[in-house]
Amino acid sequence: MAKAGFRPFHTLAVVGLGLIGGSFALDVKRLGLAKRILGYDQNPDHCSKALELGLVAAASPEFDDPLRTAELVLLAVPVRSLPEVAAQLLPLWNPEAILTDTGSVKSPLLQVMRNPEFSGVRFVGGHPIAGGERFGPEAAQSELFRGKRFILTPEAHTKAAVASRVRSLWAALGAEVLEMEAEAHDQIFAAVSHLPHLLAYASIDAIVRSDRPEALAHSGAGLKDFSRIASSSPEMWADIFLDNQTLLLDRVRVFQETLDTLTTAITSGDRDRILQLLQNAKDSRDRWMG
Amino acid sequence: MAKAGFRPFHTLAVVGLGLIGGSFALDVKRLGLAKRILGYDQNPDHCSKALELGLVAAASPEFDDPLRTAELVLLAVPVRSLPEVAAQLLPLWNPEAILTDTGSVKSPLLQVMRNPEFSGVRFVGGHPIAGGERFGPEAAQSELFRGKRFILTPEAHTKAAVASRVRSLWAALGAEVLEMEAEAHDQIFAAVSHLPHLLAYASIDAIVRSDRPEALAHSGAGLKDFSRIASSSPEMWADIFLDNQTLLLDRVRVFQETLDTLTTAITSGDRDRILQLLQNAKDSRDRWMG
Repeated sequence: MAKAGFRPFHTLAVVGLGLIGGSFALDVKRLGLAKRILGYDQNPDHCSKALELGLVAAASPEFDDPLRTAELVLLAVPVRSLPEVAAQLLPLWNPEAILTDTGSVKSPLLQVMRNPEFSGVRFVGGHPIAGGERFGPEAAQSELFRGKRFILTPEAHTKAAVASRVRSLWAALGAEVLEMEAEAHDQIFAAVSHLPHLLAYASIDAIVRSDRPEALAHSGAGLKDFSRIASSSPEMWADIFLDNQTLLLDRVRVFQETLDTLTTAITSGDRDRILQLLQNAKDSRDRWMG
Repeated sequence: MAKAGFRPFHTLAVVGLGLIGGSFALDVKRLGLAKRILGYDQNPDHCSKALELGLVAAASPEFDDPLRTAELVLLAVPVRSLPEVAAQLLPLWNPEAILTDTGSVKSPLLQVMRNPEFSGVRFVGGHPIAGGERFGPEAAQSELFRGKRFILTPEAHTKAAVASRVRSLWAALGAEVLEMEAEAHDQIFAAVSHLPHLLAYASIDAIVRSDRPEALAHSGAGLKDFSRIASSSPEMWADIFLDNQTLLLDRVRVFQETLDTLTTAITSGDRDRILQLLQNAKDSRDRWMG
């Protein structure tokens, strides 16, 4: 059943049985990419639900002996929990195994991995550009990663065999695998993802708390699209904002400069300046949207 | 051919033969809501194109004698041109005729209409909540207003017959007609439309001008939707921002407060506060989206 050319794992472990971890397990099983999938999630309800849905062969809220048999461990927990969860793995770690993750910010876990106690862990970071607004194992869906990008962030010292094994796994799930440095990843996503989410969340209050509470009845498709990402998971985004704090706040500062220039031009009635700023923004966006 | 119950106009004039004026003329003709449509547009190319497309029976870049025969004149010119165009109409004004408009901001034209020289003009303001990203008479499309809201902004002294005639006309075009005060209209749209447009335009620079020019290749559906309104017409939005200056800048101030609170919480690592702010935003949005 395994995808042509992919050598299946015997045992693979998924830590965090939410949308990402659950969907990963579902397709690994469906495509025969591993003979056996172990599941771990600190929430016992997630464990029983994942078992019930057949996502995993065994599930436990705590790491246990069978983990030693896993050839690859995928950390699909919230970004802020990654360092703590990685530390909890150590006593049961099999030095032959590969450790990887799905975090939306790459530098914090890499920094942990540079500590001496992790020197025996064969690690490579990853980030599947996929998601949804539903949570937990029930949200697991087939083909969530098909046709999506997956970003692998190997370091100079990462073993080629480790990077290549994780790359093949995600490619077998249908993802388009790209490689970049963790720092580049975090800068890029601060711009194209974290800043827009922050602005969308921050805008809602000024829209809702207007002098006309009936205003929202008049919202149209423009506002609906603009604000859609403000319905994303607050837990997940609070973590991302904190983990990518410095790079995100850099972007906020550039945004503030542009907003100040624009509001100054509006205040002073400088139509040419407003027009120029809006035209620049439109041209940039039209260019990147092709 | 006229819609059941609607008493067609003999002659109707459309000033401004762009997307809105052109689409209006197209459907008025198609539905037989007027026997004859006169078109005016200061751009001679728009006049010849509108004639060629059969949107209007006659077209002129300057107001001329036939205008005296129009029972209703629709101003579909950019918001900032409205006061000037209204003044140019006066020498040829037939006191029996109705004057109305399609502007996205309602208070500025109303203030002009309160001047004594307009006391003989039977005016009621209107705003069809419809549009598109294409311009000029070529952009005219059938059924642009069908199923969309149309907001009528009569004043206390507006004759019921005038409001009712304009209401019936837009209802015959398929719009859902609502009434509200011009001031309420401008406050509501500052919140649900003008602020999101301003923020979308202002955000592009910080996304594009990142340290990683390749960033945009990694943008996803979230950013595409969030930024879509930044591809709107800069000319039109520069005018709207200026015309609704005071109410828009009020909204920007509320937005700035929330953004400051959020960035302060990120800077100080106050996860509970961030979570609370994001959750409030998500709850508000989810509530209004039903």
